[in-house]
Amino acid sequence: MAIQTTDRARRMKRLASSRAVTDILRLAENPDVISLAGGLPDPSVFPLDRIRESMDRVWRDQGREALNYGPNPGFSKLRDWIAERTGRNETLDLESDDILVTSGGVEALNLVAMSLLDEDDTVLVEAPTYMVALHVFRAYGARIEAVPIDDEGLDPDALDSKLRELDRVGRKPRLMYVIPSYQNPSGRTWTEGRRRKVVELAHTHDVLLVEDHAYAELTYDGPRPPSLKSLSPENVVLIHTFSKIFGPGVRLGWVVAEPFFIGQLGLCKLGTDQCANTLAQRLVYEYAIQGQIDAQVAASIQIYRRKRDLMEAAMKKHFPRETAWALPSGGFFIWVRLPEHVDSEALLLRAIDEQKTAFVAGPPFFHDGSGKNFLRLSFSFVPEAMIEEGIARVGKVLA
Amino acid sequence: MAIQTTDRARRMKRLASSRAVTDILRLAENPDVISLAGGLPDPSVFPLDRIRESMDRVWRDQGREALNYGPNPGFSKLRDWIAERTGRNETLDLESDDILVTSGGVEALNLVAMSLLDEDDTVLVEAPTYMVALHVFRAYGARIEAVPIDDEGLDPDALDSKLRELDRVGRKPRLMYVIPSYQNPSGRTWTEGRRRKVVELAHTHDVLLVEDHAYAELTYDGPRPPSLKSLSPENVVLIHTFSKIFGPGVRLGWVVAEPFFIGQLGLCKLGTDQCANTLAQRLVYEYAIQGQIDAQVAASIQIYRRKRDLMEAAMKKHFPRETAWALPSGGFFIWVRLPEHVDSEALLLRAIDEQKTAFVAGPPFFHDGSGKNFLRLSFSFVPEAMIEEGIARVGKVLA
Repeated sequence: MAIQTTDRARRMKRLASSRAVTDILRLAENPDVISLAGGLPDPSVFPLDRIRESMDRVWRDQGREALNYGPNPGFSKLRDWIAERTGRNETLDLESDDILVTSGGVEALNLVAMSLLDEDDTVLVEAPTYMVALHVFRAYGARIEAVPIDDEGLDPDALDSKLRELDRVGRKPRLMYVIPSYQNPSGRTWTEGRRRKVVELAHTHDVLLVEDHAYAELTYDGPRPPSLKSLSPENVVLIHTFSKIFGPGVRLGWVVAEPFFIGQLGLCKLGTDQCANTLAQRLVYEYAIQGQIDAQVAASIQIYRRKRDLMEAAMKKHFPRETAWALPSGGFFIWVRLPEHVDSEALLLRAIDEQKTAFVAGPPFFHDGSGKNFLRLSFSFVPEAMIEEGIARVGKVLA
Repeated sequence: MAIQTTDRARRMKRLASSRAVTDILRLAENPDVISLAGGLPDPSVFPLDRIRESMDRVWRDQGREALNYGPNPGFSKLRDWIAERTGRNETLDLESDDILVTSGGVEALNLVAMSLLDEDDTVLVEAPTYMVALHVFRAYGARIEAVPIDDEGLDPDALDSKLRELDRVGRKPRLMYVIPSYQNPSGRTWTEGRRRKVVELAHTHDVLLVEDHAYAELTYDGPRPPSLKSLSPENVVLIHTFSKIFGPGVRLGWVVAEPFFIGQLGLCKLGTDQCANTLAQRLVYEYAIQGQIDAQVAASIQIYRRKRDLMEAAMKKHFPRETAWALPSGGFFIWVRLPEHVDSEALLLRAIDEQKTAFVAGPPFFHDGSGKNFLRLSFSFVPEAMIEEGIARVGKVLA
C-alpha cells in the first residue's frame, strides 16, 4: 500500500524490539501451549454476579450518562472514592483533584512520559523492569539508564553512583520509574530501609520518582511495606491500576499527584483518548462502593498464593539444581536465574516448539538487552491443574 | 509540590492553548447555562433496553473474557464485523487485518501521529479543522500548514499551491488530515468533484491522506458522497468512531489501513493503553450483530435533522442580518460567520456571563489562531425545547 506509511517516524525503529517480543508471545497463544508467559489475572477472580449487579445499577440509574462523554480527569464520584481509599491505604491526605482516572496503568505511564519528556532526556529505571515501561520511554526518545536490584530492592549505593555520574555529565534524570512491591518481572519487594534510602537520595538529587503500584495490594506473606508516595508525598507520582484489583478488561487505572500535575496529564489526555471510558468508570464505582474491591482483593490473594506455592513446589521438583529463584511475597511472577552461559531467548523458542510451553525470556526486561540468563514465569493465569505439567515441560527444556 | 513536574517538557507549552479552551468550556458546564458548545450526542439516541440486552449476553456467555485483557489490535469478532460493514458501506475489499480497534477516534489519530511524525515534520490540515486534531499534531511537535475550505470543500487550487510551495522548501508533508463529510466545525461536505481532485493531488505529490469519518454516517439531506478511502484505497488511512453511531462512553473507534501499518499502530498502542477496553468491545459487538447500529443511526438521523432545522429556524428569527451560515447536510454543527471586526472570544465570555449561554469561538479551530469572526454552534446535545431560547440568547449577544 502507501509508501508513506512505510517511511515512518524514527520512533518506530526504537520500538522494533517490542514487536519481536509480541510476535513470540503470539506463538504462545496456540491452545496446545501451556503458557506461563502472560501476566493476565486468573479468570476465576472475577465475581461475575456481583459485577453484573453493579452494571444493572448503572443501567437503571445512569445509563444515558454512562454512554456519553465524561469529564477529562475522570468520573467525579470515582475520583472521590479513589482519593479516599488511596488516602486511607497509603496514609496520605488526598482529594479528588489529586486523582486522574486513566485508561489503565500503561496510559498513566504514557501520560507521565508525554508531559515530562523531551527527546534525549534521561530516565532512570530498575534493571530489570517492566518491559512496557521501557517501550513507553523509548516512544518519547528517552535515554534510559538503569540501576540494578538485589533481593532487598534497588541498590542505593549503585543509585547514588549513577546519580553522581549523571550529574557530572549534565544528564540529570527527568524521572526515575520504579516498582517497589512484587516487581514485574523479578517479584522482588524493596525493604522499608531501602525505600527510605532511595526516597532520600531522590530528594537530595531532585529527581522525581514515579512509583508503579500495580501489584502492591496482592500481598501473600508478611507485612505490606509503605509506598514511596507515603514516605515522600511531594516527590513521588503514584500510578495504580484496576487491572489486578478488579479486571483489566475495563482498562482503568489512576495517577495520584499534585493538582497542577494532574491538570497537565489531563491536558495530554485530551489528545490520547479525551477521557477514560465512562461506562466502565461507573461500573467500577458502583462495585467499589459496595465494598467489593476489597473483598475481591482478599479472595484473589487466596487464589494466587496457592498457585504461587504450587508453582514453586513444581519448580523444586522439576528444575535443575543450577537454576535459582526467590519466592515472591506477592504479585504474579517468579523470576528465574539460569547459569551464565544459557540463552533464555533460544530456550523459549525450543520450549514453544518442542514442549508446547512458554515463558518470557529475560532480555526484554533490561534496557540494554542484557539478562539472557533469566526468565520470567507467571503463575497468575495458568489453570491450577496445569501448573505442574507446565513447569515439568520448562524443566525438560532447562535440563 | 515537586518542582520537577513544573519544569516540564517543551510539549506542554505547545498544548497551552488547548488548556485555555477547556477552561472556558468548563464555565459552560454550569447548570444555568444553555450550552451550544460541546459536540456530545443527544442522550435520547441511546436505546437503553437494546444495549442492556446486549450487555446481558456478554455476561451470560463471555463475562470472564470480557473482564480480562484482549488482543492488542482488538477483539477479533469485532474486527471481522467492522471489516465487513466498512467494506460494504465504502465499497472496499477489507479483512480483519486491515482494522485496528482504538480507544475512540482521537486515539486513532494519536496513534497515526505517533507512528508517522518526528518533531518538525509538516502536517497539512483544513482551515478550519477539528481542534483536538491540532492538539494531537502539536503534541508531536509537527509544523502545521493549512489549506482553506469553501462551500464545496477543500480548495484544490490552494492545495496545489501549498504542496508546490512546501516541495520547493523541502518540507513535503508527512500526512494531510481532513474531514470531508459534515466537518467539525464548519459543517461543510466536500463535493464528489473536490474529493476526486484532492485524492489525485495527494497521489501526485505522494502525500498520505488521513480521513476522519466521524460524522459521515449522519446524513440529513441529499446523497452521501464517497469516502476518499473508496476513491483511493492505497493512499488513504480511514479513521472512524463508535461515538456517533453507538455512544462515546465506550471510547471505541477504529482505523482502516493496510495490515503493515495496522501492525505499526498496534505497536504504538502497546505503549498507550495496550488494547481497547474488552468489555465495551464485546458489548458493541453483541449489539452490532443484531443490526442495532444501523437502526440507531437511522433513528439518530431523525432526531438530529429535526434539531438542526429547529436551530436554523431560530437563527433566522434571532440572529442579526450581518451573520451568515450554510445549512449543514449532516453532522452536529452550524458554523457562523460574523462581521470581520467581531471578536468571537470576547463574545463568548459575554455570552456566558450576561446571557448564560455558550458556543465555541472560532480561533481554536485554526492552526494559526485566526478565525476570530467565526463561531461554532452545536445542535446535538441541547434539549430540543431549549434550542430557541439558547439561540435567542446568542442573538442578543450578537446584536
